[in-house]
Amino acid sequence: MPAALRSWLDITPDSHFSLANIPFGIITTASNPRPRIATAIGDHAFDLFAFFFLNDYTSSEPDTLDADAATARAHFDIFSSPTLNTFAALGRPVTSAVRRHIQKLFALDTPFGALLRDNDAVRRKTLIPLADVTMHLPFAIGDYTDFYVGLHHATNCGRLMRGPGQELQPNYKHLPVGYHGRASSVVVSGTSITRPSGQVLPAGSATPVFAACGKLDFELELGCFVGTANAMGSPVPLAEAEEHLFGVVLMNDWSARDIQTWEMVPLGPFNAKNFGTSVSAWVVTMDALEPFLVSGLESGRELLSYLKGEKEGRVVDIKLEVDLQSKLDIRES
Amino acid sequence: MPAALRSWLDITPDSHFSLANIPFGIITTASNPRPRIATAIGDHAFDLFAFFFLNDYTSSEPDTLDADAATARAHFDIFSSPTLNTFAALGRPVTSAVRRHIQKLFALDTPFGALLRDNDAVRRKTLIPLADVTMHLPFAIGDYTDFYVGLHHATNCGRLMRGPGQELQPNYKHLPVGYHGRASSVVVSGTSITRPSGQVLPAGSATPVFAACGKLDFELELGCFVGTANAMGSPVPLAEAEEHLFGVVLMNDWSARDIQTWEMVPLGPFNAKNFGTSVSAWVVTMDALEPFLVSGLESGRELLSYLKGEKEGRVVDIKLEVDLQSKLDIRES
Repeated sequence: MPAALRSWLDITPDSHFSLANIPFGIITTASNPRPRIATAIGDHAFDLFAFFFLNDYTSSEPDTLDADAATARAHFDIFSSPTLNTFAALGRPVTSAVRRHIQKLFALDTPFGALLRDNDAVRRKTLIPLADVTMHLPFAIGDYTDFYVGLHHATNCGRLMRGPGQELQPNYKHLPVGYHGRASSVVVSGTSITRPSGQVLPAGSATPVFAACGKLDFELELGCFVGTANAMGSPVPLAEAEEHLFGVVLMNDWSARDIQTWEMVPLGPFNAKNFGTSVSAWVVTMDALEPFLVSGLESGRELLSYLKGEKEGRVVDIKLEVDLQSKLDIRES
Repeated sequence: MPAALRSWLDITPDSHFSLANIPFGIITTASNPRPRIATAIGDHAFDLFAFFFLNDYTSSEPDTLDADAATARAHFDIFSSPTLNTFAALGRPVTSAVRRHIQKLFALDTPFGALLRDNDAVRRKTLIPLADVTMHLPFAIGDYTDFYVGLHHATNCGRLMRGPGQELQPNYKHLPVGYHGRASSVVVSGTSITRPSGQVLPAGSATPVFAACGKLDFELELGCFVGTANAMGSPVPLAEAEEHLFGVVLMNDWSARDIQTWEMVPLGPFNAKNFGTSVSAWVVTMDALEPFLVSGLESGRELLSYLKGEKEGRVVDIKLEVDLQSKLDIRES
């Protein structure tokens, strides 16, 4: 591990929250029910609102603060926000500086020991065991687009729906195929999802029945939050697109497949996806993912020039897994 | 005209804003740039925030106020909201009472003359010529669903796309076919819309090109705002559905037809609709539309029981028209 990523805080080697991560999320606690911004480090949430409120850096001489600390200090009031929207809207130069400053605060050889490491009172008020925090939906979601990625998934789905040789529609390799999901039913992981009822077409029948979904499906996906806006009517050039991305969460795109089959022609999925979409609470920044960005699959198709650029097709090379717990497992546990 | 709908304010017979209407909207003015709730009466906006702020009714004996006035007074601070969301969320019993109270304030034989009609100072501060107000998007839109109504429209579209005999998909007469539009690009009428560029498939070609939309279309639609929420996973019975509706606006569902044709298989319209959706600024309440609700068209199909009820198929019987102004017209005017 690079020295800069070793911490004075005890972080187990298998923790999701090493100094290399520094995700952002929204917490409340029993003693403070006001939603606010925090990061996760080891087994603790670090309450950024409390930290910047308790410690406005006025006790430090300005010339002891580096540029990242100065940037974080300049925006200290943003951490009282009940969502990450305003923080992410500050843009990557600011959010990256805040992340670097947090890394330095927790680094083994931190230059800011007096602010946290060596300050019992501040540590007690800002480092909260993760088991004691309630996590909330990290963003107020203005719109939710579900893209039909990637190539293997689309090929498998197409084979199930249309059979071999017809897997991909003619447009698939030319543009990002997507549609809007229901923004208002995206919920934080752990929120109960109710099995939906709706219209399904029994096999061999031409008349639908109203029934509880019999083919409730899950999809492991990566959800990405766009942090900074563009003016309506002003396209974002591909070379600048990555700068607009704040970070990612794991996402379960719950799907009622029997309802979907009947309802989706010709305008796409609707109620089959509306009943809930789960996202994880901690947003892993694009900064943390930078080492894992690689070139995407070769599609064998020349892209139109507006989709080409230096960062064309950069994708995140991370391995995601699903564990399923059946009802029987739950009874036994 | 019923006596209760005649006003002491001068309202021309062709005004959209008689006492029978009383729509709600969000205004700002040169002298007060803070967005707030108003209604429109004749040629004036009536600044509800200013009215209830200037006049908290404490000068009136409580027993001179009827139930509607008391309800309006109890919620006077809601009119400082920058959108109609919190007002509409109070529910029809409250919003209807506020509307009736406004009707009584402006009635020729108002029982509340001292509050407005006979109070020069309050009238001067609350009645603003419509020409002097700037209108804003009336709601913060959490989700936008575009339903594929009605029968004639769907039949005509189907004939264009699939030819005679194939107009309606098998599901059309069984459920409300709909999909999500982009909530974040719904804008108030008057906002400039930029002609979008995107992928289109030239006739006879298998390879798309990137070009400005050549088939920019408009659709006259009625937009409906859902005012009160239901808990996720708890369906709204049909008999209660109308109570959740706050009101309607005219809507232009701008469409890039050439982009749509290429992109929409299999997941529905996306960029072809994302570039902007225009809605009118004044929300006409369901209360105002109540006299115009009639039974819908007979579909010739038995509905599933969850879609049947006393108010099954009530639709608004109003005539809407589109005037087109060509570039030549604009040059001449």
